[in-house]
Amino acid sequence: MTDARDEEANSDLTEADRIALGRVTLGALHGEVGLGYVQRLAEFCPDMADLLLAYPYGSIYARGGLDLKSRQIATIAALTALGDSSHELEIHVASSLRAGLTKQEVVEVLLQMSAYAGFPRALAALKAARAAFDKVEKDGGGGHSGA
Amino acid sequence: MTDARDEEANSDLTEADRIALGRVTLGALHGEVGLGYVQRLAEFCPDMADLLLAYPYGSIYARGGLDLKSRQIATIAALTALGDSSHELEIHVASSLRAGLTKQEVVEVLLQMSAYAGFPRALAALKAARAAFDKVEKDGGGGHSGA
Amino acid sequence: MTDARDEEANSDLTEADRIALGRVTLGALHGEVGLGYVQRLAEFCPDMADLLLAYPYGSIYARGGLDLKSRQIATIAALTALGDSSHELEIHVASSLRAGLTKQEVVEVLLQMSAYAGFPRALAALKAARAAFDKVEKDGGGGHSGA
Amino acid sequence: MTDARDEEANSDLTEADRIALGRVTLGALHGEVGLGYVQRLAEFCPDMADLLLAYPYGSIYARGGLDLKSRQIATIAALTALGDSSHELEIHVASSLRAGLTKQEVVEVLLQMSAYAGFPRALAALKAARAAFDKVEKDGGGGHSGA
Amino acid sequence: MTDARDEEANSDLTEADRIALGRVTLGALHGEVGLGYVQRLAEFCPDMADLLLAYPYGSIYARGGLDLKSRQIATIAALTALGDSSHELEIHVASSLRAGLTKQEVVEVLLQMSAYAGFPRALAALKAARAAFDKVEKDGGGGHSGA
Amino acid sequence: MTDARDEEANSDLTEADRIALGRVTLGALHGEVGLGYVQRLAEFCPDMADLLLAYPYGSIYARGGLDLKSRQIATIAALTALGDSSHELEIHVASSLRAGLTKQEVVEVLLQMSAYAGFPRALAALKAARAAFDKVEKDGGGGHSGA
Repeated sequence: MTDARDEEANSDLTEADRIALGRVTLGALHGEVGLGYVQRLAEFCPDMADLLLAYPYGSIYARGGLDLKSRQIATIAALTALGDSSHELEIHVASSLRAGLTKQEVVEVLLQMSAYAGFPRALAALKAARAAFDKVEKDGGGGHSGA
Repeated sequence: MTDARDEEANSDLTEADRIALGRVTLGALHGEVGLGYVQRLAEFCPDMADLLLAYPYGSIYARGGLDLKSRQIATIAALTALGDSSHELEIHVASSLRAGLTKQEVVEVLLQMSAYAGFPRALAALKAARAAFDKVEKDGGGGHSGA
Repeated sequence: MTDARDEEANSDLTEADRIALGRVTLGALHGEVGLGYVQRLAEFCPDMADLLLAYPYGSIYARGGLDLKSRQIATIAALTALGDSSHELEIHVASSLRAGLTKQEVVEVLLQMSAYAGFPRALAALKAARAAFDKVEKDGGGGHSGA
Repeated sequence: MTDARDEEANSDLTEADRIALGRVTLGALHGEVGLGYVQRLAEFCPDMADLLLAYPYGSIYARGGLDLKSRQIATIAALTALGDSSHELEIHVASSLRAGLTKQEVVEVLLQMSAYAGFPRALAALKAARAAFDKVEKDGGGGHSGA
Repeated sequence: MTDARDEEANSDLTEADRIALGRVTLGALHGEVGLGYVQRLAEFCPDMADLLLAYPYGSIYARGGLDLKSRQIATIAALTALGDSSHELEIHVASSLRAGLTKQEVVEVLLQMSAYAGFPRALAALKAARAAFDKVEKDGGGGHSGA
Repeated sequence: MTDARDEEANSDLTEADRIALGRVTLGALHGEVGLGYVQRLAEFCPDMADLLLAYPYGSIYARGGLDLKSRQIATIAALTALGDSSHELEIHVASSLRAGLTKQEVVEVLLQMSAYAGFPRALAALKAARAAFDKVEKDGGGGHSGA
């Protein structure tokens, strides 16, 4: 199910390359907010910063096979279902708008979660989304203007 | 963020209409497997069958604002993150293929979940996906033969 | 297991009726606090407000078959077991007192949760209950004076 | 909020008394099925059997302050919300019928959980309840024949 | 698997002894911070304070069979996996340092959790650990200086 | 908090090295059972097999800073707290015995989880542990015969 040629290319990637790739991927998705977060994390715990760059961003988000808007839908749905992740949700919702999802599409994912993870978690996620929408608005757009 | 005209139209829908709409939506997504499940559920607990048709299918999946492939990505991600839902996952993965997601796209969502919900839940979901792929294969469906 | 006659009556209910029924049910349970919350939610996301009124309140809490005090016990237990729902817990505890549960009964449910969901979640729920008790006290009672 | 006199009486209870009290409480609730389970558990891990008898049954279920039917509603709601507890649910549903809850009341709790913990967990719980109803039926119990 | 002689000795322990043992165990682990927390809890709900002392501290942490550092690793891992427990995590991390775990050992447990419970919960736990490290630092050490 | 020299060495590691390191680490921990599992996983989904080898085994378990017995305690505690992971628990319990944990130490971790994640999850984990103990017994391993 995967392109062997890509795999071969990847198998030569060093850990330092992987982390650098993760930083580029994270920066493209989350912008300055995300890079600043990793910078502060690295000051406290450089290993966690490296693992975060190397795995979710350098190994997962850097993969092909699924477009970025679909990846954001999966992440937002999962964070809502897990609960207790309002901070990550706020960041990922803001980044989803920059990635081209409309506000309505984000909201539809959260409404859908009421049926799968229950209303308390869907409502908590909607509160985080609202905070992200307000912040994006104040920062002069960035997100496609959407619905 | 929603089209007021649609809302007005919906507000005239009776509960019986809503349940009928849910049955059509569920049938289009899950086919005979899904309709048979609801039929057996209705024999044991007609109210639960009605609520299932009326809410997740008649009120959520019947909504516009997000294409079906995106809704399936959100559901698969959420079921993986919740854990303990291998049966629902198997059904939703099979239906996702009929809705036009490729096997690779389904797998990409599950790989991504390893970073958000951990490897045990991602691996359990992959096992359910494999069962769904095998069943679709055996039923002669390519995964793109439409719903 | 359900009264077919009721079901027939319900099947004529329109979506607008259902939402109106939900608003009455929510208002009877949570009072002005709850109605204000839905009002603010509707300003941001009218569809979520409608789904919240139509489903948990208009379709579930409006049902017969289980008295209100028992429904509140189920909700408080579930919110404690889910974790990360201190805001909902606070509202539902306050409403439970108004519905006739004593403070001791609420506390007994939370103590019981220590055995089913562990002490961290039971202690977090107790903290939310304390905040609710204090608020009800300050508002001049409302809740049956209880234990 | 508690009766100090009871507390004093309890404070003289030895651990052996507490375990014996737990065994009586568990036997009254779950009958031979429950006692047989604890017996087999004790053969593998006597300390876990003692802790189970001493805490959930000897310290929680043996408490006053909340009637048994309400305790069963709280437990069933919590097990549904936690997910992955079909075995415990089946036992607690059967015991709830013996404690005087009607099948409809049990089902109402599970329907309600669809709004708080999502449909996948409510449907899984309903499946466990159905197995319990069938077993109670076959054993000739009406559901109200007492423990 | 357990020492029968210990069990016999324990079976004579009264509930009051058990609670006293729990208070000593909790005090040895968490110090003044923990004792103050239980004191405030007891003012609001003496039964919860008694159950907390009697069970997790008087019945579990007071057991032999596993050294304290290993118990702290288990608790920190579990609290991270459960999510939504930043307050308990902060207290248990500070106590783990006093019990002889190094900061690096605590951090290694949290890094490991990224693979089992996902990055959002591992990152939230790391934030709680950082707060605990800062507090221990300010309080003039206490924790073994570690890595 | 980490040894910079190690980090530099690691940064030259290629992805192929990382996967090879993960395979060695997994083999040392889980033996033939684990290697066979990864082999079958690789036949269905080679990317998931690579990610599993590269991250939990090649990047986490291959780290220093925490001894293997402590890592096993953390994993067993986390899998118990997450619930719905009986298969992983069984494998990790068997490997923990090979890594030098005694059966009693494993059981102590699970008993402790009753206080943090509730009895249903602790009892489910004990059932998985019992299956692992039986299998290790049958395979003639004493629990300390090393990996």
